[in-house]
Amino acid sequence: MSNRVANVTGTALLTDQYELTMISAAIKAGRADRRCVFEVFARRLPDGRRYGVVAGTGRVLDALERFRFSDDDITALREIVDADTLAWLADYRFSGEVDGYREGELYFPGSPVLTVRGGFAEAVILETVILSILNHDSAIASAAARMVSAAAGRPIIEMGSRRTHEQAAVAAARAAYIAGLSATSNVEAARTYGVPSAGTAAHAFTLSFATPDGSDEKAAFAAQIDALGVDTTLLVDTYDITRGVANAIAVAGPELGAVRIDSGDLGVLARQVRAQLDDLGAPNTKIVVSGDLDEYAIASLRAEPVDTYGVGTSLVTGSGAPTAGMVYKLVEVDGIPVAKRSSHKESHGGAKRALRAARETGTIVEEIIVTGAGASGAGPVDGLGSLDVRDLQIPLVRGGRVVDDVPTLTDARDHLARGLVSLPWEGLGLSHGDPAIGTRYVTRPEK
Amino acid sequence: MSNRVANVTGTALLTDQYELTMISAAIKAGRADRRCVFEVFARRLPDGRRYGVVAGTGRVLDALERFRFSDDDITALREIVDADTLAWLADYRFSGEVDGYREGELYFPGSPVLTVRGGFAEAVILETVILSILNHDSAIASAAARMVSAAAGRPIIEMGSRRTHEQAAVAAARAAYIAGLSATSNVEAARTYGVPSAGTAAHAFTLSFATPDGSDEKAAFAAQIDALGVDTTLLVDTYDITRGVANAIAVAGPELGAVRIDSGDLGVLARQVRAQLDDLGAPNTKIVVSGDLDEYAIASLRAEPVDTYGVGTSLVTGSGAPTAGMVYKLVEVDGIPVAKRSSHKESHGGAKRALRAARETGTIVEEIIVTGAGASGAGPVDGLGSLDVRDLQIPLVRGGRVVDDVPTLTDARDHLARGLVSLPWEGLGLSHGDPAIGTRYVTRPEK
Repeated sequence: MSNRVANVTGTALLTDQYELTMISAAIKAGRADRRCVFEVFARRLPDGRRYGVVAGTGRVLDALERFRFSDDDITALREIVDADTLAWLADYRFSGEVDGYREGELYFPGSPVLTVRGGFAEAVILETVILSILNHDSAIASAAARMVSAAAGRPIIEMGSRRTHEQAAVAAARAAYIAGLSATSNVEAARTYGVPSAGTAAHAFTLSFATPDGSDEKAAFAAQIDALGVDTTLLVDTYDITRGVANAIAVAGPELGAVRIDSGDLGVLARQVRAQLDDLGAPNTKIVVSGDLDEYAIASLRAEPVDTYGVGTSLVTGSGAPTAGMVYKLVEVDGIPVAKRSSHKESHGGAKRALRAARETGTIVEEIIVTGAGASGAGPVDGLGSLDVRDLQIPLVRGGRVVDDVPTLTDARDHLARGLVSLPWEGLGLSHGDPAIGTRYVTRPEK
Repeated sequence: MSNRVANVTGTALLTDQYELTMISAAIKAGRADRRCVFEVFARRLPDGRRYGVVAGTGRVLDALERFRFSDDDITALREIVDADTLAWLADYRFSGEVDGYREGELYFPGSPVLTVRGGFAEAVILETVILSILNHDSAIASAAARMVSAAAGRPIIEMGSRRTHEQAAVAAARAAYIAGLSATSNVEAARTYGVPSAGTAAHAFTLSFATPDGSDEKAAFAAQIDALGVDTTLLVDTYDITRGVANAIAVAGPELGAVRIDSGDLGVLARQVRAQLDDLGAPNTKIVVSGDLDEYAIASLRAEPVDTYGVGTSLVTGSGAPTAGMVYKLVEVDGIPVAKRSSHKESHGGAKRALRAARETGTIVEEIIVTGAGASGAGPVDGLGSLDVRDLQIPLVRGGRVVDDVPTLTDARDHLARGLVSLPWEGLGLSHGDPAIGTRYVTRPEK
């Protein structure tokens, strides 16, 4: 029992033990290669949410490419599975196909956000890591998109790294960027994914200039400006906000980039500080507010003179919905539709095709999920009249290889921005409600 | 903007940009080496919780040892800080001291769970990664401990990997083990930390034996037993539970290890299945239940014939409190106590000593936090009468090096088990309430 460091370069052991023992049993029974279709979907949205945002697809594809069992991995599994299975794992390369919703696509209950086709064993083994990534990243992006809507065009900086697992923080910054946040405080997310980074200063910085005779906020501000320039953001609420703003302008002059308020009644304080800055001849100095903001608090500040929001805890914890609740279900075996029987959990067997119908104005009206033997046919669906219909899945992996033209992070961000505009007006409501559009199942029996 | 893989071997970039820019400003101002004391504490417990559990300390020490800036890291930071700062970062080695609560220790509002002493720059830079780890792991362990109490001695298996970030899943399994869970489904947690691993089977396995003529549950059960032996756990609710149990015993015989029920009214079903197993002559076949269990659902099943619980979502999301809300605050600079002034956030300047008072019976009664210039003195505290008093912090890092005898994961698990027994009886209540013991601040001015 040692305090070792988790292996974090490969992804193959980021899985549940039962995936491996099921493979062992399937190999022994000669069933490991049955052609299977697995689908990822959420039976429902988090309580009261109007839409979900697919995020993590790019990370899933990265994880798939790194899904290899090293010699060390194989050694670690000797107690869990037999030699035949170890040999199979050592040779593992996914050889199948993956289709899915674009990253940044809206999703609704039942939407097949990812479809994996391959042999039973090679496909079932991906369940855990695929769900981990999609459930985490989609939860963050779904919450973040509501914050972006609430901010109504004002920029939001993600600064929640310290409130979540240190690696989850990097993924959260990425998901938040897809959702439309402007920047992240997370340096690794900036390096790895190119998310724009930003930062202000902590109270500790100002406090660290304390002298035996008391505080010295001006010295702290002067040091920050000396190092970072006058365009920086000074944190003004370490001692007294009014004095902090006065000190900030006294030291930086009226060209100071911004001040940050991190505590108190942010609306009242923003008005006071705005008036004070204007009086001091600093009308262009911006106001950044932070401190336990969520989408509701952001919305409540819409009428106040706030320029930028900083969000942390609520973002990285999905604002009450820290996981998206997606599942990975076997829906087809050698062409036979399968589904767990249950009175409560609605599952539809068979591979599906997903369409979204919109009015000419672009407003979406319905998610259409085509099931049955003829689902994969590209033909039109009846009963849609003059609606525009768009296929939602795109190819992501062919013959085990990630396709060349997978959408980038910027594509995902742009795609979501368009998607949010396509929602019916009630779909952007922050209050609890039903999904913004309904999901209709259409069965097309003929091939 | 590429879909690259996050760097996950070093920890130095798992940080907020402002840590780096503050260091840059401190270096330029000649203040980087002021002797500082930072403390990690939570101002409050999550709403209604009676206690928190410190977890992640071992991971913090691992992260500290890996906190080095590689050449690639330095290159990535060239746009953010100046050359002097880059040079300082390239040479970075923490040289200070860390003391903290044992991993597995209970904590309460204000408890100084970690104290970091060092130069301003070398200590402030650790803020983000320390908080990420402690906030995540402590949130999981705190929720998990409630589940363990609710299970009243029955084993719980952690199986939540798919509901959280893929790396957070590994840390969650570790934290859950500290809290007293019996095993994890997560293979990487088993490999890295030695947490016992366990697994059953998924519905997909049974479904994968479907034939053109219909389902074949018996074939699936036979394959699993053939590969894993009769001591395995068969999932019996893919089609019909009563028939599933009959099939399970028909195939495995009465020595079958266990059956798992993953859906429906688990209490009713557990009674039915217990009666059926007994009728089939399998009184030793155990019953594992899973499916959206949290501490309340576990408690509600206490009177039912359940042998083992499987928990997922609620565990890895902290059962409503996904982050512990700990902060990292500068409390002392060159011997001068410092604190942000705020009407709402109670902060106490100066390095602290933490004690816990208990009756002779072992029941704890009070957390005592000694502040003031004489806080570090080892002498007794007044007004404790016949109570036993124990110092809560232990040395973790000396001269930048992790001490030799840091408690192991097993030590942490054992320590928490003793800690839970020491709570006043109302402290183990699942209902919302106040912290189980109060926190008292004692000022000791003399050195």
